[in-house]
Amino acid sequence: MQSFLSRKAQAIEPYVPGEQPKTADIIKLNTNENPFPPSPKVLEAISGQVEKLRLYPEIDGETLRCAIAKNEGLQPDEVFVGNGSDEVLAFCFPAFFNADEEIFMPEITYTFYEVYATLFGNAFRKIPMIDTLDVDVDKLLSGSGGVILANPNAPTSKVLPLETIEKMALKQLEKGKVLVVDEAYAAFTDQPSAATLISKYPNLCVTRTMSKDHSMAGLRVGYALGQASLLSGLIRIKDSFNSYPLDRLAIVGATAAIEDVAYFNDCMSSIKATRAYFTEGLRARGFVLPDSNTNFVFCRHESVSGKFIFDELRKRNILVRRFDKPAIREYMRMTIGTQEQMKTVLSALDEILK
Amino acid sequence: MQSFLSRKAQAIEPYVPGEQPKTADIIKLNTNENPFPPSPKVLEAISGQVEKLRLYPEIDGETLRCAIAKNEGLQPDEVFVGNGSDEVLAFCFPAFFNADEEIFMPEITYTFYEVYATLFGNAFRKIPMIDTLDVDVDKLLSGSGGVILANPNAPTSKVLPLETIEKMALKQLEKGKVLVVDEAYAAFTDQPSAATLISKYPNLCVTRTMSKDHSMAGLRVGYALGQASLLSGLIRIKDSFNSYPLDRLAIVGATAAIEDVAYFNDCMSSIKATRAYFTEGLRARGFVLPDSNTNFVFCRHESVSGKFIFDELRKRNILVRRFDKPAIREYMRMTIGTQEQMKTVLSALDEILK
Repeated sequence: MQSFLSRKAQAIEPYVPGEQPKTADIIKLNTNENPFPPSPKVLEAISGQVEKLRLYPEIDGETLRCAIAKNEGLQPDEVFVGNGSDEVLAFCFPAFFNADEEIFMPEITYTFYEVYATLFGNAFRKIPMIDTLDVDVDKLLSGSGGVILANPNAPTSKVLPLETIEKMALKQLEKGKVLVVDEAYAAFTDQPSAATLISKYPNLCVTRTMSKDHSMAGLRVGYALGQASLLSGLIRIKDSFNSYPLDRLAIVGATAAIEDVAYFNDCMSSIKATRAYFTEGLRARGFVLPDSNTNFVFCRHESVSGKFIFDELRKRNILVRRFDKPAIREYMRMTIGTQEQMKTVLSALDEILK
Repeated sequence: MQSFLSRKAQAIEPYVPGEQPKTADIIKLNTNENPFPPSPKVLEAISGQVEKLRLYPEIDGETLRCAIAKNEGLQPDEVFVGNGSDEVLAFCFPAFFNADEEIFMPEITYTFYEVYATLFGNAFRKIPMIDTLDVDVDKLLSGSGGVILANPNAPTSKVLPLETIEKMALKQLEKGKVLVVDEAYAAFTDQPSAATLISKYPNLCVTRTMSKDHSMAGLRVGYALGQASLLSGLIRIKDSFNSYPLDRLAIVGATAAIEDVAYFNDCMSSIKATRAYFTEGLRARGFVLPDSNTNFVFCRHESVSGKFIFDELRKRNILVRRFDKPAIREYMRMTIGTQEQMKTVLSALDEILK
């Protein structure tokens, strides 16, 4: 049959997100959603905004940018907001990277990076990991173009210390190139964010999502932090794509969530406590996993195959995630849900491993 | 100062949307917003969804696609939804057009088309109008690549008859190329939509926005209609950019608005009645304007300069839109607001023209 698709649309291999099952009776631990609802202040903020929907939203999400800037100790023009960190990350490619300069990225990381590069026609190179799970920082810096990495990394759950990130920013600065640090999971670590380096590095762009830490996967809000001159590139691309990617409800809802710091801190504490409980439980059952710096763990069993465990969990209505890559085929990525959910998972594993 | 922006980000000229003033006491007729609030059912739908925000939305906006398909007499897989028709239109460029084949578009139309083409590296050609306001259909079809046009056109407010659109779809089909018809304003005409041609033309993509006709500029929802094989291109690009561009609130809110057909019809009738009243009032005051098929009029005065009238209206807190293009510099685009607002505009014009 004749295709009316462009060569690019026919050739590109889109990103495949985790399954979104429609049945309600499933323990869903496959897409790193937060087990808690958003702050109650979000509903209030959203309800008050519906009558204004006939009017376009703020073109630059100023209300939200001000709230984020205040939390981060930055200026509002050091914050850029978008439709999930996916959109913000996508904009980074045409904004910061020339098509003919290879972008270096880790081999095992968020697989969307290479898809963005393909969509926008950027050359890129994937740098193999050290011992399966560790980023090879020196090789990652050995190119002459931009660098992008997730820190903490997904799906490994491991984090590079802030000093390493600073070393990377400096090396990239010497080259005159940008470093993008995707901090989707940074709220789940105990170390300072790369955002603390922004005043020193005009080439450093830090991205975040509110999907995981602020329980807002369903609202699609992400942001970038960086010096205003750098973020002007994101603004130029955004204004060449969609004037208003954040709707009125997302702007006020996300602002309310950002401002409710106490709720956020309680939520992070609960997830970290459950993560410690679950990690210990997994290790006691023969699982091998690094300490997690995210709201998920990345684990393999010392003797039982990943596919077997994945399938057996699925039969018990527990959905986790596996990746179809040879190096990590024995691993599973399991989101930290509620304490009760993780207890159920451990009981299921007891049955499966019996 | 050293720039860390890509060559593309430095060179591109972003789209400039109409001003969004922050003062409340303005009669805002510059961005074609609807003067009426969205259907009351929208608030209800949105309120019920807030507690679910911790979970990702439907990846394909299925609930909304089904509602739109039902209204249009199409199948759900003949509907694609996105973050405003801006995003949907942007996706059309990498989805349907090869970079090296010139896209033909009218000279006077939505200026975002050429920005999208530039962002995605597509060659394009702008086809001069006939007598300032009319699309030169034959020249538009004289290339060998894709064609995009708005029908009704903005800012001219003029519409091509359905037979002409069908002729275009057929000519493009013979070439094996796509025709994109941007129907942002189609609800304000009395003629059938190009969507009625979809079953015959596998190369026809019709886009719509809910910003204007459904009073939802603040919610950012747009969609494309076409055969499933064609829309697969949009899906492939969307999944290579942002898995979930429509948030949960936008999906349920837009669905409620689409389903409230009675409210929609009342709203369209009011705007058409006010448009007739305002058109007559303008002509009685020496303005020249085509009959409008949109929720705005495009007018110039037979003897007084556009800039003078624009500035005088602005002094009276009435904001309309002018475009900085030589051919249409005497024209103003004025959104149809409420009957009362348009009465105020006519009184202001009486003062100004005195």
